Amino acid sequence: MDSIRGYIEKNKERFLEELFGLIRIPSVSADKRNREEMYSAAEYLKENIISSGADKAEVVKTSGWPVVFGEKLIDSKLPTILVYGHYDVQPPDPHEEWKSLPFEPEIREEKIYARGADDDKGQLFMQLKAFEYMVAENKLPCNVKFIIEGEEEIGSAALKKFCLRNGQLLSADVILVSDTTMLSLDTPSLTIGLRGLAYFEITVTGPNRDLHSGLYGGAVNNPCNVLADIISGMKDDKGKITIPGFYDSVKEVDKGERELLNKVPLDEDTLITNIGIPEFYGEEGYTTIERLGIRPSLDVNGIWGGFMEEGAKTILPANASAKISMRLVPDQDTEKIEKIFKAHLENISPPGVSIRIKTLHGGNAYVAPWESKEIQAAISSIEKTFGKKPLPIRGGGSIPVIAAFDEVLGIKAVLLGFGLETDAIHSPNENFPLQSFYKGIETIPWFYHFYSESYNL
Amino acid sequence: MDSIRGYIEKNKERFLEELFGLIRIPSVSADKRNREEMYSAAEYLKENIISSGADKAEVVKTSGWPVVFGEKLIDSKLPTILVYGHYDVQPPDPHEEWKSLPFEPEIREEKIYARGADDDKGQLFMQLKAFEYMVAENKLPCNVKFIIEGEEEIGSAALKKFCLRNGQLLSADVILVSDTTMLSLDTPSLTIGLRGLAYFEITVTGPNRDLHSGLYGGAVNNPCNVLADIISGMKDDKGKITIPGFYDSVKEVDKGERELLNKVPLDEDTLITNIGIPEFYGEEGYTTIERLGIRPSLDVNGIWGGFMEEGAKTILPANASAKISMRLVPDQDTEKIEKIFKAHLENISPPGVSIRIKTLHGGNAYVAPWESKEIQAAISSIEKTFGKKPLPIRGGGSIPVIAAFDEVLGIKAVLLGFGLETDAIHSPNENFPLQSFYKGIETIPWFYHFYSESYNL
Repeated sequence: MDSIRGYIEKNKERFLEELFGLIRIPSVSADKRNREEMYSAAEYLKENIISSGADKAEVVKTSGWPVVFGEKLIDSKLPTILVYGHYDVQPPDPHEEWKSLPFEPEIREEKIYARGADDDKGQLFMQLKAFEYMVAENKLPCNVKFIIEGEEEIGSAALKKFCLRNGQLLSADVILVSDTTMLSLDTPSLTIGLRGLAYFEITVTGPNRDLHSGLYGGAVNNPCNVLADIISGMKDDKGKITIPGFYDSVKEVDKGERELLNKVPLDEDTLITNIGIPEFYGEEGYTTIERLGIRPSLDVNGIWGGFMEEGAKTILPANASAKISMRLVPDQDTEKIEKIFKAHLENISPPGVSIRIKTLHGGNAYVAPWESKEIQAAISSIEKTFGKKPLPIRGGGSIPVIAAFDEVLGIKAVLLGFGLETDAIHSPNENFPLQSFYKGIETIPWFYHFYSESYNL
Repeated sequence: MDSIRGYIEKNKERFLEELFGLIRIPSVSADKRNREEMYSAAEYLKENIISSGADKAEVVKTSGWPVVFGEKLIDSKLPTILVYGHYDVQPPDPHEEWKSLPFEPEIREEKIYARGADDDKGQLFMQLKAFEYMVAENKLPCNVKFIIEGEEEIGSAALKKFCLRNGQLLSADVILVSDTTMLSLDTPSLTIGLRGLAYFEITVTGPNRDLHSGLYGGAVNNPCNVLADIISGMKDDKGKITIPGFYDSVKEVDKGERELLNKVPLDEDTLITNIGIPEFYGEEGYTTIERLGIRPSLDVNGIWGGFMEEGAKTILPANASAKISMRLVPDQDTEKIEKIFKAHLENISPPGVSIRIKTLHGGNAYVAPWESKEIQAAISSIEKTFGKKPLPIRGGGSIPVIAAFDEVLGIKAVLLGFGLETDAIHSPNENFPLQSFYKGIETIPWFYHFYSESYNL
């Protein structure tokens, strides 16, 4: 696998051109009107999987956005790696904060700036180009399958159904994913845990129109005030979530693992300076690393209602809405969380208003077994190219389908991600350092190598 | 004054045409870009005051939007009535809920539909046309002055300053205002009290950009959640406002007046059906009428932050904002309320975020003396044209400058308004029944008559 560096050097301009072609397709899954964009992105990937050396690839219709499946089977006695990624991206808003257009990639200071530059078009492309190298130089040590979806950012509902119906097609020994971050390029790390997600939108409805707040204020329950009460009532002043039953299934992490976790060098001062806050804040009794990795959380992702423009309009609004999501940890179950969330809101039932709840998406948490062959192979591959063993981290983000792969297909995932915190995924000016991109392409073939080697032991 | 009915009948088409010309100018004061519209509306009124019979009228520049001043002085021994009104209107949003264009008046089912149809262009025009009648038929029993402003909906800051500097110009015996509502055309009422207003916008700022809620959720204080806590913390579960010191200056209304107030026939069932809520809700220990008239209130007028579009974006927002206003009662003072509001927010100071407060507008509450000549003249004029004595009500809305007229100029105001609750002022599909419009024009000359008569006693 040592020739990979030379291969990258020779082909890197083309790699970027190919990636940019994908980035230029604004495949925002959250917007139902984006049918053309979603199918274009899927077709683009299908073509690239073929040109990278797969035997076949196809765009498969699902109950939602299409998935792309591809494979190169060389020997049924060899192990099979299923590469997972997603071609959908987060919405680019707020538009005005982007320094360059979100869907026109631009390289500034050795970084690619664009929506999807990291999450997950950039990271997925490292997988494709590492695969291309192994095929081109005849070094592929195993069978490879690709499953690439368009709903990662909205809960992977279609892919979960696809897994239930296509167990044979997707059968593999391990799943390989590049969609997570490292602490830094100098301090490589490996994500062994992901939090789950339960995401809801609630709408509080009061009067049938905006009322004059002078004529009605004081006698009509105000949907914005009610919504604030509801949100505020979901946490206490120690940062604990107060929805009854919320912590019931939370698996307490033992002292030993908590100590190990807290050994990860988290430079809190640099981090708070980077994101511009005076201090961290969260659930009492836990460190920042613990709050981010092993504890569930509840955040309002958006809120709106009434008069939002310039000036002073004296209305009592007809409606108020909020998007509220919870990050989950083992063994919380999104369906159970949905039930207790709805039951909680029903129990409060404030007077004079009605509440509507929409479940937007969910996925359970996931923890990878540290001692397993696949995690050990990932550690070796990172050590090979970064020169250091990676630190284990329990990541904060969710990849909704990872837990489903485990539950439905019985296949464990390796989260071999090369993103950085500063990549600003989901934010304006998302970016991906060229160095990360090339380092990822360099590391992935080594994972194939070590994993296949260990498989035969 | 008995010829007024015939005069209305003969001229009503022209009256409507003239009013529609004013309504077509979208003079929304909240938007600073509306300079041209605001000056056009002021000029339009100046011309109409002249053509209605005034000796002079002028558009006067102020520190904000211009005021229109006009007068007809016939005899210094006669009383002087100062007519007040405003040419500015509330923003028309949400646009999509209007059945016809907000600034293109349309008559449907004997009602004028347009922004400003009632508040206050329609009601102000009744004053102008009643004045026109008295001049045209040589029946004016007193001197008349007009002061019409363009900032009523945003707090009347410029007019308050104008009053301080132009006491002589505005000197009068009574102020006459048509900018309030009646219970119904069958149950005439007279507003003798107005609540005041203190209006703020607060912005909670956390990180310097929207963060990925999976990567940071649980360890970074979320501005939307903090804002919900702040709002929720301003009221207890009995509907009492909990900002320290908020009720300190509230003048408790005595048992006798509370009993009188509660005699007003408020058909709560019809009202909640009209506005589409299952029940009224407010401060414990008070009736709906009391909550609307003699008790202060606190309402969120608008709230926004984070992701407000379709779908599920998993961010921890950088900012969250809310417009929060309080209706005040005697003897609460807007400046003191501003101080305790700011002190309260400073005292909470949630960790990890900063809070910015903008004061948008304010005005003190006002109560007219029931036994005074002017109120008695208003009662007589309503009785004359409606056939019934009006019921006294303490209104919920604010007219910011009314308290200032009393405090600065020492002139009491008569709130001779002809709006209805169903006029939907400040809401989409604002309207004004033609019957209200004509009834107002008919009643106003009688006020002039009775007031001037009592003045000489």
